[in-house]
Amino acid sequence: MASKHKGKSHEPVPVAGNGLLDRRMLLGRGIIFAGAVGTGASLTSAAAEPLAFDPWTLTPGIIIPAYGTPSKFEAKVVRTLTNPSGTPRTAQARTPHHLLDGTITPAGLHFVVSRSGIPDIDPAKHRLVIHGLVKQPMVFTLDALARYPKVTRIRFVECGGNSAPLFSKEPAQADVQAIHGMLSCSEWTGVRLSTLLEETGIDPKAKWFLAEGADSATMNRSIPLAKALDDAMIALYQNGERIAPSQGYPMRLLLPGYEGNTNVKWLHRIKLIEAPVMAVNETKEYTILRFDGKAWQFNFPMEVKSFITNPSPGLTLQGPGYYEISGLAYSGNGRISQVMVSADGGKSWAQAALQGPVLSKALTRFRMPWRWDGQPVVLQSRSWDEAGNVQPTRAELLAQRGEPRNSPSIEAFPMTHMNPVTSWAIDSKGETKHVYV
Amino acid sequence: MASKHKGKSHEPVPVAGNGLLDRRMLLGRGIIFAGAVGTGASLTSAAAEPLAFDPWTLTPGIIIPAYGTPSKFEAKVVRTLTNPSGTPRTAQARTPHHLLDGTITPAGLHFVVSRSGIPDIDPAKHRLVIHGLVKQPMVFTLDALARYPKVTRIRFVECGGNSAPLFSKEPAQADVQAIHGMLSCSEWTGVRLSTLLEETGIDPKAKWFLAEGADSATMNRSIPLAKALDDAMIALYQNGERIAPSQGYPMRLLLPGYEGNTNVKWLHRIKLIEAPVMAVNETKEYTILRFDGKAWQFNFPMEVKSFITNPSPGLTLQGPGYYEISGLAYSGNGRISQVMVSADGGKSWAQAALQGPVLSKALTRFRMPWRWDGQPVVLQSRSWDEAGNVQPTRAELLAQRGEPRNSPSIEAFPMTHMNPVTSWAIDSKGETKHVYV
Repeated sequence: MASKHKGKSHEPVPVAGNGLLDRRMLLGRGIIFAGAVGTGASLTSAAAEPLAFDPWTLTPGIIIPAYGTPSKFEAKVVRTLTNPSGTPRTAQARTPHHLLDGTITPAGLHFVVSRSGIPDIDPAKHRLVIHGLVKQPMVFTLDALARYPKVTRIRFVECGGNSAPLFSKEPAQADVQAIHGMLSCSEWTGVRLSTLLEETGIDPKAKWFLAEGADSATMNRSIPLAKALDDAMIALYQNGERIAPSQGYPMRLLLPGYEGNTNVKWLHRIKLIEAPVMAVNETKEYTILRFDGKAWQFNFPMEVKSFITNPSPGLTLQGPGYYEISGLAYSGNGRISQVMVSADGGKSWAQAALQGPVLSKALTRFRMPWRWDGQPVVLQSRSWDEAGNVQPTRAELLAQRGEPRNSPSIEAFPMTHMNPVTSWAIDSKGETKHVYV
Repeated sequence: MASKHKGKSHEPVPVAGNGLLDRRMLLGRGIIFAGAVGTGASLTSAAAEPLAFDPWTLTPGIIIPAYGTPSKFEAKVVRTLTNPSGTPRTAQARTPHHLLDGTITPAGLHFVVSRSGIPDIDPAKHRLVIHGLVKQPMVFTLDALARYPKVTRIRFVECGGNSAPLFSKEPAQADVQAIHGMLSCSEWTGVRLSTLLEETGIDPKAKWFLAEGADSATMNRSIPLAKALDDAMIALYQNGERIAPSQGYPMRLLLPGYEGNTNVKWLHRIKLIEAPVMAVNETKEYTILRFDGKAWQFNFPMEVKSFITNPSPGLTLQGPGYYEISGLAYSGNGRISQVMVSADGGKSWAQAALQGPVLSKALTRFRMPWRWDGQPVVLQSRSWDEAGNVQPTRAELLAQRGEPRNSPSIEAFPMTHMNPVTSWAIDSKGETKHVYV
């Protein structure tokens, strides 16, 4: 350790196979680009004064818009759409995590699953009804909700069917957006559902509640009442502004950590009930039929999970040398406590740095310094949460659920709650592909 | 205290004048809308089943776009522009804090100050040069920067000239966007400047650095080298995606807590130097000329400050009853430690709840429950930071700087670093205006 502070010319300390480096290393001159001078960082005549003027410095700039949009050079940073013409079936839009960094997802890139597109709701006419087994049914306008005490929480939402391709018999040749893109994270602000239930009162017979949307599919789900009294929120704002049309404008149910489908968008009804209604999305879909004939139902929290976003398929390494391995970890059961990274397909592991603040049920960015020697490697990440859960390897997950009998497409939902370790193989050209190890 | 837990019919406990309530109160049935049934929350026939269908439930929804935008019903939630036709002078765009909630500012609504619009930079051709008093000058492409260790931080940026209208002799009849809108908060991800300076090395003679943009104004500022070695960042991502064109795409200097102008956008040069260059923005502008003839220069951190966003001018109260008072607090010197709220123009104060996590040099949302009796009141907030600083009253601030000699327009910069307490007077009709008390 002492040698780390002696000077700038030390070599970084390997901590696991294939070049994973001590995350507390100090950088030194020439360390990072010793093998990669050609890629960018080097002395050129441009360092002399005066600097050459770029063309955009020689012309007046663009007028500031009232509502800004990304640069035209970022036109590829968009959601991928499974139903771009809006035919009458479910549509997914996936978040491009390989092109993002940090932990917040911009509202315009938040993943979407919708059975019937986006309803065009007039907020002045929209109402939220709370009824059923309450002492006093009530109707809330948006103006009324605005007067209640509010809370702000950074929380992820993940579709129960995210990462379904990992159940395929052969590794899907797809990128991180296609495999893990039904996951996003926002700062949500709204009124706790428990606050509203203090207003309506609760009939002691109530044990569950039904949440229903005002979309034309009138999406509905049954949720245990305990979640309503814990951290359920009627979300009104997303990343500071009114929530996005595709996220439930003007209000959605937010059930932190619970599978995405239960976070009912375009929310217009909460009905307190004695038992679940057995809606199509809790019987036909979002149950896990195991191959021993038993099924898991009402399986709400999304399990601890992580994946590497960079490098990942489509992001080709530009020759040997230093890189940062970076990815996302999260758990529906609380905070991430540890992420380990391997560059040798799971033979050796090193602990990644977690970007603070590490928040409960939020995306946590992890980072690991790495020196690639140009040889083929297999990158993996594995996460633990504060509740003591550990992300399974794919073999461990299949041992519990049974082997897949065929290779489903990415759009099929053969299995939900898929949280195994993801493996990226990098070849000697620096190209990355999804593999099973 | 014990009575709070006995039932639902208790009255909330007043903790300061004109209806400020205990922030730990439990709500009970009828408490909130006891005086405001007509505004929204009430029993109607809509609580019976089946619910009436709204028109948007009876038609297929809108197709999910690849990059989402806010609802058409939010068309008024935009930045106000001081130079919408892009004439050759400085342009400001202000954040509509009275229409937002939470702490993150969407990138499209982040405030902007620019001397020459937004340069249309091709990221593949943009370069960052680090030179001057370094051991090895270097040029960095965006691809090269992507390989370095990165960090993610939620931090505010505030223009040094924000809140300048509070120096006006008469209270500006303006809303929170016009008075305090040159303030925003994002999740920034990038490379520490200190990481890059480990690569270039530092000549011991270097004590300051010059940061310069590639905009046609080539905005430049001199910054003490200590900030570069502390928390300065070359920011590449804002709220998860590449930073907005108006925020410096493809890269900006982020100097957490320092006045906005020093956070140079469209950054293309860092030059290590012995002494400040005395740029126009550190001599003509962004100095504080006091009326005793002395001036404050190189006055970097933005001082502890807070203001109430709701209620605020333009947001008319809908009759007596319960409301949540909410606002933003922040300090360029660290974390907010306390916010106090008054509803009687500063005669009595109560402690507001701070929305956690309370982060250093980030916006902190504060909230205070309030029961308005329909009589005229004056709302104020006052903040403290962990460094022991306290937000001054306007009288305290003027005692230090001298009385204003005339009433400058909002666009003039008669005084920077204005952080006095803001006062909102609410009349018996529920209308709010800016006052001095």
